[in-house]
Amino acid sequence: MARLITIGAAQSGPIRRDENRATIVERLIQQMREAHRQGCDLIVYTEVALTAFFSHWWIDNEEELDSWFEREMPGPETQPLFDEAARLGIGFHLGYAELAFEEGRKRHFNSAILVGKDGVIIGKFRKMHLPGHYERRPNNPFQNLEKRYFEFGDGPLQTWRAFGGVVGMCICNDRRWTETYRLLALGGVELTLIGYNTPDHIPEYPQMDRLSNFHHQLCMQAGAYQNGTWVVAVGKAGVEEGVSQIGLTSIIAPSGEVVAQSKTLGDELVVHTCDLDETIAYKQLFDFAANRRIQHYGPIASQLAAISPP
Amino acid sequence: MARLITIGAAQSGPIRRDENRATIVERLIQQMREAHRQGCDLIVYTEVALTAFFSHWWIDNEEELDSWFEREMPGPETQPLFDEAARLGIGFHLGYAELAFEEGRKRHFNSAILVGKDGVIIGKFRKMHLPGHYERRPNNPFQNLEKRYFEFGDGPLQTWRAFGGVVGMCICNDRRWTETYRLLALGGVELTLIGYNTPDHIPEYPQMDRLSNFHHQLCMQAGAYQNGTWVVAVGKAGVEEGVSQIGLTSIIAPSGEVVAQSKTLGDELVVHTCDLDETIAYKQLFDFAANRRIQHYGPIASQLAAISPP
Repeated sequence: MARLITIGAAQSGPIRRDENRATIVERLIQQMREAHRQGCDLIVYTEVALTAFFSHWWIDNEEELDSWFEREMPGPETQPLFDEAARLGIGFHLGYAELAFEEGRKRHFNSAILVGKDGVIIGKFRKMHLPGHYERRPNNPFQNLEKRYFEFGDGPLQTWRAFGGVVGMCICNDRRWTETYRLLALGGVELTLIGYNTPDHIPEYPQMDRLSNFHHQLCMQAGAYQNGTWVVAVGKAGVEEGVSQIGLTSIIAPSGEVVAQSKTLGDELVVHTCDLDETIAYKQLFDFAANRRIQHYGPIASQLAAISPP
Repeated sequence: MARLITIGAAQSGPIRRDENRATIVERLIQQMREAHRQGCDLIVYTEVALTAFFSHWWIDNEEELDSWFEREMPGPETQPLFDEAARLGIGFHLGYAELAFEEGRKRHFNSAILVGKDGVIIGKFRKMHLPGHYERRPNNPFQNLEKRYFEFGDGPLQTWRAFGGVVGMCICNDRRWTETYRLLALGGVELTLIGYNTPDHIPEYPQMDRLSNFHHQLCMQAGAYQNGTWVVAVGKAGVEEGVSQIGLTSIIAPSGEVVAQSKTLGDELVVHTCDLDETIAYKQLFDFAANRRIQHYGPIASQLAAISPP
């Protein structure tokens, strides 16, 4: 038996701050056509794929900040992407900055959507683990202002039946937290889609820079194996507005093995045919029903920070 | 600043079914003396270190089964190990099969203790995630009867102040579960000690055999990095009573890097000086208080098995 899905992981090279949405959407459409030529059922774009990653610099003008967000999805500038997907019969995953009017106020999220082969949105996820800081750090070579510009996602970590399997999404820093994969696995996830913008330098911890590629894949490989899921992770790579970001767009099997990865720091399509049935043996191996000891897991959901013994 | 602790990870070669405790304890004492010569503060022995790993074969006689367990710790046969530790001024970690009389009944656990440089027990842990099966599987080349021979550990996953830091323990299959490391990290763990008996063949999933070493280290490397803890994992290696087990006794830094590992499948002492202060940057990086989203983690502690969308 096999449940095959051919996936194109569409790594993005840098986007200039002054590029407009129409140009970017055209670039995404070119990647979509290439993915379709290569037989893909699904193309996966990165986090905040429609603009440069504006969390890397300081913005204190509200109108200017809002201009980086999408007010509707699809909107006038993104509709062509949906139309092309429907025309070609290919699904897509897209990360974007979402401006929503909810609860009587304006809300900002770092979001991702999954779109079916008919061009209709299947599901949306709002980034749960926002990294970075709220305040300006003038001595840093670049900022990481996600905690300032976005609200924390209001959850849950949902899964959807799509593309012949069970699909979940998380975004960038979510992939470093074991809870992310476990929550998705408790929703039966077989295919986890991730976009990311990850600098190859952490201003506060430069000693970790040499390990940025290793840490990136380590978390996802363990998450894949321990939860029996495919992981497709797609980066914004290369030097964007002075910030150098890792590439290593990766397709990881439920065995934890990286089966395909990017070789450049630019636009690059990484294609792999994933058999969703490969998840089965790992889900049986770990057999949550027989082996998880939830009566002892309480502190994970009730205790925020570490409490060392006295 | 540095908080240095020199650790000897005492990999064990196979133990014959008919070897008696006194012989094994003498072998452990030889390794302890070698560790002391190499300046170790702590020697870490493996899981069920005092006998062959009897879960690998069928035992239906209660008296025979009980003979594999320790009724007291220290007992007459293990007292020399405690005496030698106190004499040398070296701490140790020891895994053993524990027979306890509690709650008005006889109880069996797969346990580990941490012993201070004064030869006094600091803490005990009972294995939480028992692998294997309850029933005999006559077609398998060996059995994995831990679920039959032991009770599940009654928790919690505790940590202790010892050796200048915060120390936690887990056992063998516990290391494949992300909850283990997270619970220890919520207790502030800086040094995680693990013993294991891991066959290089899974009868039910032979396609995973080629990955046994990879999976072994993958879980621990991710657990170390994501929780900012040193991990010292010590195996029973080589062919024991017909069962071939992995070696790869490993010392893993909070960066997730394997900094020392065994090169044989026999008795081998792997020594490394660990700086517990290396945990600090990783604990700050992940900053549980600022970043964990416990309001969304509920299902991890309340939902046992996966529930796929309809």
